[in-house]
Order: sequence, then C-alpha cells, then structure tokens
Amino acid sequence: MSTRLIRKEVDEALLAFVDRQRPGLLAISDELGPMLSALDALLAGGKRLRPAFCYWGWRGAGEGESPGIVNAAASLELLQASALIHDDVMDSSDTRRGQPSAHRRFEAMHQEQGWPGAAVPFGAGAAILLGDLCLAWSGEMYESSALDPDRLRRGRAFYDLMRTEVMAGQYLDMLEGTRDTGTVETALRVVEYKSAKYTIERPLHMGAALAGASDEVIEALSAYGRPLGIAFQLRDDVLGVFGDPAETGKPAGDDLREGKRTVLMALTLERADPAAAAVVRRRLGDPALDAAGVAGLRAIIEETGGLAACEAMIDRYAAEAAAALDAAPLTGEARQALGELTIAATARRV
Amino acid sequence: MSTRLIRKEVDEALLAFVDRQRPGLLAISDELGPMLSALDALLAGGKRLRPAFCYWGWRGAGEGESPGIVNAAASLELLQASALIHDDVMDSSDTRRGQPSAHRRFEAMHQEQGWPGAAVPFGAGAAILLGDLCLAWSGEMYESSALDPDRLRRGRAFYDLMRTEVMAGQYLDMLEGTRDTGTVETALRVVEYKSAKYTIERPLHMGAALAGASDEVIEALSAYGRPLGIAFQLRDDVLGVFGDPAETGKPAGDDLREGKRTVLMALTLERADPAAAAVVRRRLGDPALDAAGVAGLRAIIEETGGLAACEAMIDRYAAEAAAALDAAPLTGEARQALGELTIAATARRV
Repeated sequence: MSTRLIRKEVDEALLAFVDRQRPGLLAISDELGPMLSALDALLAGGKRLRPAFCYWGWRGAGEGESPGIVNAAASLELLQASALIHDDVMDSSDTRRGQPSAHRRFEAMHQEQGWPGAAVPFGAGAAILLGDLCLAWSGEMYESSALDPDRLRRGRAFYDLMRTEVMAGQYLDMLEGTRDTGTVETALRVVEYKSAKYTIERPLHMGAALAGASDEVIEALSAYGRPLGIAFQLRDDVLGVFGDPAETGKPAGDDLREGKRTVLMALTLERADPAAAAVVRRRLGDPALDAAGVAGLRAIIEETGGLAACEAMIDRYAAEAAAALDAAPLTGEARQALGELTIAATARRV
Repeated sequence: MSTRLIRKEVDEALLAFVDRQRPGLLAISDELGPMLSALDALLAGGKRLRPAFCYWGWRGAGEGESPGIVNAAASLELLQASALIHDDVMDSSDTRRGQPSAHRRFEAMHQEQGWPGAAVPFGAGAAILLGDLCLAWSGEMYESSALDPDRLRRGRAFYDLMRTEVMAGQYLDMLEGTRDTGTVETALRVVEYKSAKYTIERPLHMGAALAGASDEVIEALSAYGRPLGIAFQLRDDVLGVFGDPAETGKPAGDDLREGKRTVLMALTLERADPAAAAVVRRRLGDPALDAAGVAGLRAIIEETGGLAACEAMIDRYAAEAAAALDAAPLTGEARQALGELTIAATARRV
C-alpha cells in the first residue's frame, strides 16, 4: 500500500513547501517558531489519503508522474491539517495522531512559561490561527504547484467545492450533535459531506480535472468514490469505538467520550431496547467515561447488532465501489492502485 | 470619501459572489441558512478599506476601471470577514460592527432552539467554521476574478504574504497580551504585521502587482502605505478607548475591557507614575470594567500625556505618508484618491 499512497513524494513536497515558508515567518519574529513546530508535529503523522486519491485521479485520467501533480495533491494535506486543528479546538480533543492536539500544545507552552492570563483561551486562539495559516497555505501550495493555469482552473472547481463541502459538513455534524434523535439518514448526510466527498470523491475529481478528464471519467469517479467514501468513514467510526489507540492516534473510546453521532451509533439506537438506548443516551458524550463505561457501550453496540449492521453496510458500500471501479474508464495502473486503496481504506482491523 | 472607497462596486461584487455560493450551500442542506445569514449580517457593515487600497494601487499603476479588479479587491473583504469572526471568538467579543458577533449569534440560536448541550461551544464552533468558509471563499473569489492568469500570479505573491502576515500578527498580538511588560516597540511590531501591512501596504501592493507595476512603484507604495498603516491603527486604538460606539460598532471602552496591549497603552504606561501604572495594570483587561472604570482609565491615558503622545505619533506617521504619496510615481487621479483616503483613515474623530 505504501507506494499507492505516494507518501514519500507527498512528504517531500510538504516539507519543501513548509521550508520555503519558514524563513519568512521567522523573519517576522522568531517568536513564531512554536507555530511551525506545532505544524511540523502534526504533519509528521497522517496517511496522506487525500493526496493519494488526487494523484490517482490524475493518473487514472491518463497523465504520467510529475512534480506538479504531487504538489497540487499535497496541498490537500494542509487543508486537512487545518480541518483537524480546528476540529480539535471545537471538540476540545486532547490528542491527534498520537500527540497532543495543537491547542493543547500551545496551552502547555503558556503554562510552562508561567505567563499571566488564562492558558486555555491562549491555546485555543493560537490553534485557530494555526488552522487559518494551514488553510491559507493550502491555497498557496495549490496555486504554486507548477501546473499550467488552464489545468489549475479546471482542478480548482473541485478544490473549491471540497473546501466548502467540508466546512458545511462539519457544521451539519455539530447540528447533529444537538439532536437527541439522530437517525441513520441524518448521520449519513453528515458522512457524505464531511467525509466521503471530502476524503475520496473530490480529491479524485480534482486530480482528474487537473488532467483534463472528460465528464464521463468524473462521473465514473463519483460512482466509485462516493460509496468508498461512505465505507471509509463507517470503518473510521468503528475504529473510533473499537480500534487500537496505536493505530487511531486517539485514546480508546474517544469517539464515545466526544459523543460523536455516527451511523454506528444510529444503527445501535435503532436496534436497542429502551433500557439499552437510555444507557447509550446517558453515556454517549460523557467526557468522564472510564474504561468500564467504554466497555459497557461497546457491549451494547455489539449485542444490539449495531456493529454487525455497520459492518454489513461497509461491505455493501465497498462492494459497490469495487464494481464501479471495474467499470470505470481509467488506466489499468490507476484501477489497480485504486483497488488496493479501496481495500486499505475499508478493511476490518478489529 | 464614499467614491474613493468604491464601496458600491465592492458591495455589488461581494453580494454577487455570495449569491453564487448560496444555492450550492443550501442544496447541501437548508440547515446551512444560518451560516449565510451570519455572513450577510457581517458583510452589511465595514468600510471596505482594504478593497479600496487594492483598487487604488491598481489605478495608481496606470490601469483603468474594470470588473476584474473590483472582484479581486473585494475578495479581501472576505479575508477580513474571516479574521474578524475568528478574532471575536478568540477575544470572546460580544459585538462587531454594531451587531452581535458571529459566535454570539450562533450561541443565541442554540439557546432559542432549546437544543441540548452547551450553547457556548456550539457558538464558537460554528463561528470557527464560518471564518474558515470566508477564508476559503476569499481565495475562491480572488482566483475567479476574471483577470488573466499572469496578472493573478503577480498579485497572488502579495495576497499570499498578506494572509500569512495577518495570521502571524494576530499570534504576536496574543503573545503581547501575555506580557506585563509590553513596550511601545513590541506593540508597534504587532501593529506593523497585524494591521499596517494587512490593511494598507499589502492591498496597495496587490492592486499594483495585478496591474503589472514596476518595483519602483511597489517600493513607493511601501513608503506611503507603511506609515499610513501605522497611523491608521493608532487612530483605531484611540477610537477603541475614546470613540463613539455608533462609529466603532463596539461598546465604549471595549478595547480596555479586552485588555488590548496597544501602542496607546504602552505610551501611557511609559509616562505613568507607579500608582497610575498599577491602576492601569489592574483594570486593563477586566471584563467587568464599568463606566466609572472606563472613565478612570481614560483620565489616566489623558493626564499622563499618553493620548497626546499617540496623537503626535499619528500626525508624524500621517505626514510621512502624505510626503511619500506626493513623491510616488502614481497617476494623478490615484494620488488624489489616496490623499483623501489618508485623511479619512487618520483624522481625529474624538
């Protein structure tokens, strides 16, 4: 899978971009060093999924390897960094990719320095600004990716959509959190915009559009990317409850403590008897949920059949994606790479 | 002044852009309506200073009127909207442009709907996302402004710098707030990046670069824009303490309650005797500061000579800007418009 993720190339492009920014930022003030350190730490992790799908959208539409597409694809990792940093502020998450979240890093710096004033709002404020910087730098990296202006214009249509859709999806996700009565349907709508389009369909579209792909290719990539994106997010939801912290980079059960209204939880609530549903409603989102509480919720998710239903949905969407990929008018090499990415993004790991 | 601000043209361009986004956002979900309402409310106010300086940078470099430059210039107002929304979250500000700040709007919506969960983090989260959307849309509006790719590339160098500099400046501003020992020098550094370059010098550069201006013109615009930007921010600092709420859109003394470490306050502390300095240190940043407390701080700022010193600085920087403008190789029409903007941006209004 590692070659499919073109991780090395993307990492080099990201490092080169950040290194070009570094002297300018430090010339403003060397006190900006912690902004760069926090970004370096975040970028050290991550699977580079979005750049990989963007790259294979480009290759699938018949273009060859080029530094330009790697740069354009890697710009999506800065967009993702921005989304993660802001998401962690919004959720008050302590960890990300196995390390302290950005706002906690700045908060800790404030405390260590013994500065007057409150450390928590300082941490949040600095992380909001770092997320803004990543969002701006994503745009800058995309535009400076050394592809010709006509290509960039075509790709930008999807890059722009992607940014709007992920922010809209995050807002809908917050609204979902205000409902006691989330359903599988409303949870799936959040998945579609916050995750599925953002992680897979739009990066594929962006890469293909940069390559000048026909509408037929764009549609085929939707037929493949949309179900795969849903399957990917459902797998992520399962990992958020049952996954190995070493893999997720988050403490076990963190999604339960954060109270995420996932499809998995909606499937569970649909199937739960009133007593079990009451336990779920009471404990989901309890920041003090301990190991026993996590184990109790896990048991309900399994015993109601919520987990099995979610796994069945993942299988169904992954199969739909695989069939669409078989039928897609893409180069053979891209079809093979995307087939491997399909498995990697949805396979059972619990 | 109104014609100099090309406010009508900028407003039309902004409205047209947001109206193009509206159906797409509502097609994702009609529950995204409040995001658009909050943006509409914010964009109803504002002086459009950055677009005006961008426009006159373009005209000063010899280009004529065109819808393309108005669109590119107006994109800076969405960047500013993003900065204001996030700044208000970071400062927990209640009002902006005479209306509730974005996070307070979302917080009030949460309360009115009687949703479960906490209204405050919901408001902050929604405002973080709205600010992100504005930042992304600023980039989208700039790139879709119908200027040719070569022009856009030249202007982008300054647009990119502007985004990085304002975020860096905001971070330094936060750091400044952690110091008991802010000096005129450190406060001026924040002013330079957070305000002066961002509000005046870089918009001028961007407009001129879009017009293909020579390095000589760019340098002349720095010689004019940098001191004017400092004078503008110092005027804003004075208005933040002594200004009419109807003009500032903020309650009287709000900058004092927020504890802003401005040049005005640094000048005051330099001149204050130990007793007065202790009062300033104790009350500056007290969110419960009442009218009597505001009056007491105002008296200290005046009696120490801090206010007079700040006014003298404003006069000095404004005169430096005016002299640089006289010597700048710009079109006569632009020189006249910028001369009027200089006065409007720095004149005493207290």
